[in-house]
Amino acid sequence: MNLNSIGLLGATGAVGREMIRLLEEYELPIRELRPLASRRSAGTQIPFRGALLPVREATEEAFRGLDFVLGAVEAEQSRHFAPMIRAAGAIYIDNSSAFRLEPEVPLVVPEINGADAFGHRGVIANPNCSTVIALMACAPIARLSPIRHISACTYQAVSGAGQAGLEELERELRAHAEGESAEPRVFPAPIAMNLIPMIGSLTENGYTDEEMKMQNEGRRILHAPELLVNCSCVRVPVLRSHAIALTVETADEVSPEEARAAIRSFPGVRLALDEAGRDWPTPLDTTGGDPVWVGRIRRDYTRANSLSLFCCGDQIRKGAAANAVQILRLLTE
Amino acid sequence: MNLNSIGLLGATGAVGREMIRLLEEYELPIRELRPLASRRSAGTQIPFRGALLPVREATEEAFRGLDFVLGAVEAEQSRHFAPMIRAAGAIYIDNSSAFRLEPEVPLVVPEINGADAFGHRGVIANPNCSTVIALMACAPIARLSPIRHISACTYQAVSGAGQAGLEELERELRAHAEGESAEPRVFPAPIAMNLIPMIGSLTENGYTDEEMKMQNEGRRILHAPELLVNCSCVRVPVLRSHAIALTVETADEVSPEEARAAIRSFPGVRLALDEAGRDWPTPLDTTGGDPVWVGRIRRDYTRANSLSLFCCGDQIRKGAAANAVQILRLLTE
Repeated sequence: MNLNSIGLLGATGAVGREMIRLLEEYELPIRELRPLASRRSAGTQIPFRGALLPVREATEEAFRGLDFVLGAVEAEQSRHFAPMIRAAGAIYIDNSSAFRLEPEVPLVVPEINGADAFGHRGVIANPNCSTVIALMACAPIARLSPIRHISACTYQAVSGAGQAGLEELERELRAHAEGESAEPRVFPAPIAMNLIPMIGSLTENGYTDEEMKMQNEGRRILHAPELLVNCSCVRVPVLRSHAIALTVETADEVSPEEARAAIRSFPGVRLALDEAGRDWPTPLDTTGGDPVWVGRIRRDYTRANSLSLFCCGDQIRKGAAANAVQILRLLTE
Repeated sequence: MNLNSIGLLGATGAVGREMIRLLEEYELPIRELRPLASRRSAGTQIPFRGALLPVREATEEAFRGLDFVLGAVEAEQSRHFAPMIRAAGAIYIDNSSAFRLEPEVPLVVPEINGADAFGHRGVIANPNCSTVIALMACAPIARLSPIRHISACTYQAVSGAGQAGLEELERELRAHAEGESAEPRVFPAPIAMNLIPMIGSLTENGYTDEEMKMQNEGRRILHAPELLVNCSCVRVPVLRSHAIALTVETADEVSPEEARAAIRSFPGVRLALDEAGRDWPTPLDTTGGDPVWVGRIRRDYTRANSLSLFCCGDQIRKGAAANAVQILRLLTE
């Protein structure tokens, strides 16, 4: 193992901070960790391995000498910084949606298609959070028989909108506790004791870009170019674990027992029954951990070769930061 | 219109209290309203049309002289009291699941199959709350082309577990605001900032009895004995409006435009776009009102003759109390 110099772009956000905790937790061999952010956040001190690292402004200069850059910024910023990272000769592992559908950029969930990461040309993309979590539940089934169709209804945590989303739910809940009301700022409607069935921007077909990600990204990750996914994305008043109700149609019949056995032997996925002694996972169960939990696996009696199930995973961990740091680990171990 | 004597069985629960408010609001012609409940609740005073009505214990005696009894009690109690109500010569409109699948008992959503109510033999059943709300969104589409298959993922409010469910969420949220934790009592896991993908009891096929209701009751209400419904029921930290993400497959193609036009002209259903100026409903939008709101109607590009949509409705109103009082209104106007 080589000692690497790692840049962290977007070090002060919810995902960036989690990436730093994970670099500690996974004990990756690191020569230097360099937290980078906007000018506004420069100077912030971030704890890492017993020291306090100053956050530097992300400039062309700031990427020099780095081997890898982990990106936890929005797509627009990611597109802005990618050429600077390339010029500095670093490999960019990007959590944004900027490059996920570019054919020469591997889109990777290490447990599912880790080998793809090694074909990179300087940029590796980390998938959408709901997509990672749903696919972690689907991939063990796909090993038994190719998946043709997925119906997905999401129950997405507010952390999907970053630190601001977390603060918005807490602020609205405090207002409720004090008998007051709070105007929504981050979400387009109140989220405390409410739901919002609209995440992302509408596309021409009536689905949002967020809803289309599960098919577009799922095809690349599962190597299933014909995969069809009908997805409905809904924001729920949960802090940081996403949940997804899935119905998975396979080419051949897969029994619930076979699916459970496949999940038990797949890295990064757990049966709720094994972990909690009950056959259903909740967002609180998976909060703070990497594994995706699966439960309620049952034969969909309404269609052939079809299973329904329910999964949960921490949006900030496996949905974002953990998956990205796992890609880094894969490339450096 | 005749003046009727109405008994209200379960008058002190969340649904019972709402029924009383609705009897006032709908200005039904009533000679006498007689609130009935368990011995424990007898003596409670309930406001109705400017007076305070004392709650009587529900005994064989207590049903005498009534024309109709509205039931807002659990199935077991409903089965216990039904023979007494019959013996008293009253017509029983029951909100519990006790008689919903008995062939001689009409199962009625007035806007959908109101005519069925008139074929009663003393008992009329009010459907499951998620079923009513989902079917109100589906029925206008079913008028355009028979529905073959429904995929439903529910986002069910805590009021589905009655007053105790409402208090549990509020209690857990207060504990969170004070930095404490609260042990769940009503639900099998914490519900504040969490979800529970398990409502009701498991049946042999791996679905819960709650999940099977949408098919079993939907077949009767839509007069579609072959209807297939794959349902996943999930409790969410919302007070009193249920939401359901639906994909509806029809015999012939129905366009989103045709579906929207059908919904606009169907009583009791509204397009979120018309009501709120945005194409998606939230539980808070429908709280306290009768209409079910529908939005996000889009062609499911993954299957033929298939539409996806999202609907919300007040669980205590149209999901329970309002539908029952509307059945009463239908029979008495």
